[in-house]
Amino acid sequence: MSDKLIRNIRITIEYDGTNYCGWQDQNHSIQNSPRKQKKSIQQVLEAALKKILREKVNLFASGRTDSGVHAIGQVAHFRTYSTIPLKGLQKALNSTLSADISITKISEVPLDFHSRFSAKSKIYRYTILNREYPSALSRNTVCFYFHPLNVNLMRKEARVLVGTHNFKSFQLTDKKKIGQIREIKQIKITKTGDLIHIDIEADGFLYNMARNIVGTLIEIGRGRFPMGSLKKILLSKNRRFAGPTAPAHGLCLLKVKY
Amino acid sequence: MSDKLIRNIRITIEYDGTNYCGWQDQNHSIQNSPRKQKKSIQQVLEAALKKILREKVNLFASGRTDSGVHAIGQVAHFRTYSTIPLKGLQKALNSTLSADISITKISEVPLDFHSRFSAKSKIYRYTILNREYPSALSRNTVCFYFHPLNVNLMRKEARVLVGTHNFKSFQLTDKKKIGQIREIKQIKITKTGDLIHIDIEADGFLYNMARNIVGTLIEIGRGRFPMGSLKKILLSKNRRFAGPTAPAHGLCLLKVKY
Repeated sequence: MSDKLIRNIRITIEYDGTNYCGWQDQNHSIQNSPRKQKKSIQQVLEAALKKILREKVNLFASGRTDSGVHAIGQVAHFRTYSTIPLKGLQKALNSTLSADISITKISEVPLDFHSRFSAKSKIYRYTILNREYPSALSRNTVCFYFHPLNVNLMRKEARVLVGTHNFKSFQLTDKKKIGQIREIKQIKITKTGDLIHIDIEADGFLYNMARNIVGTLIEIGRGRFPMGSLKKILLSKNRRFAGPTAPAHGLCLLKVKY
Repeated sequence: MSDKLIRNIRITIEYDGTNYCGWQDQNHSIQNSPRKQKKSIQQVLEAALKKILREKVNLFASGRTDSGVHAIGQVAHFRTYSTIPLKGLQKALNSTLSADISITKISEVPLDFHSRFSAKSKIYRYTILNREYPSALSRNTVCFYFHPLNVNLMRKEARVLVGTHNFKSFQLTDKKKIGQIREIKQIKITKTGDLIHIDIEADGFLYNMARNIVGTLIEIGRGRFPMGSLKKILLSKNRRFAGPTAPAHGLCLLKVKY
């Protein structure tokens, strides 16, 4: 053992969150919830790593994603004594994992790299299909919204969120009150055909923050909230004034920046 | 009854073919095949129409798609005595159907319109993900191919297929020999990032023709067949010389032209 060197391995993971309870089992207080029966992405990945490396592995991600939320660029790291070549490990993982999880990058990083604590910011993308009929092929990755949304209005209002603020108004209400200050570095709202993409880059996200911001922006785009409401909602620090939580399946963790 | 007018309704259908045996039950001779247990798209649509219109409906499509093949622009028509408004019927269908089938357009057409016989051409798109690792989010709609493919070579060779030819070499071998002459109007092979799209427009497709052409082009792109082979394969009229049938899930009926 003594002459074996420990390695710190970083992986980038793409996953379809549809059939999982999220990155990690979130121990929801709701009993008998159907999501209880679903596995977590972390659990499935740790099992695959254990099978291939023949040692127990603790996997740390940049952050949790909620049940049903997807990722294209989730980043995680783990330590191992195994000397397995990286390309071989990536191939073995992709063969072992079910097709709704794939390892898209792998590299060896310095021992002080931590996927969560070294992260500078994260970009989440929310996708809305805004037209009169749903899409069969993208039903699990876009949120279908029938009523026309005014994207210009959403864009104008969203500006107030950029910067360092207390985002308590957009946090799941039953969460403990520890540090609701976050910095949103950028919100980009673009429309391509029937698709509206809302990209939010922040140094961190409170629980349900991205989906609550999107739910509020949808109300604004539909004309249900007057101009200037987003500022009032933000300053109120009261979840009850914000819009509903947008469905999980429209959300995707695009990228983690280090 | 006598004063009721019959209407001819045309619908455009998007579907994820993953969980279906194809457009129509194809009565394969293989017994106990698992696809036997899957429903057909036609069957599910006819049941939804019957439920909404309260009359038996015969639905005719532009052509069959095979088990696992998708569509963005499948076209079908049916006749009905119902006076239901078209927008209402589209909404009712999309609410009744499971989320992997959606009606994207609906219109009333002259009684002599026939989705199959009035069609001038069809465009199928085959999508290959050509890189070293698979994609979780598009696993059901793109065909993952590990070995690098030379797209220029594929493009050059594909030219020989354009025009009116006997495509027997690309037809499923156990099909009856009735009229293997078809006209390919265009083959467009494009590469965007890791994705290769092969768009084939023809006045008609023999059984498995699109997938057999793609399977052969893959062999060419990989360098397994020398330059000039596609012409030889086409002229041979022998299925055995062509490449393997590419997997169904990479294929999508993009558009039917009238």
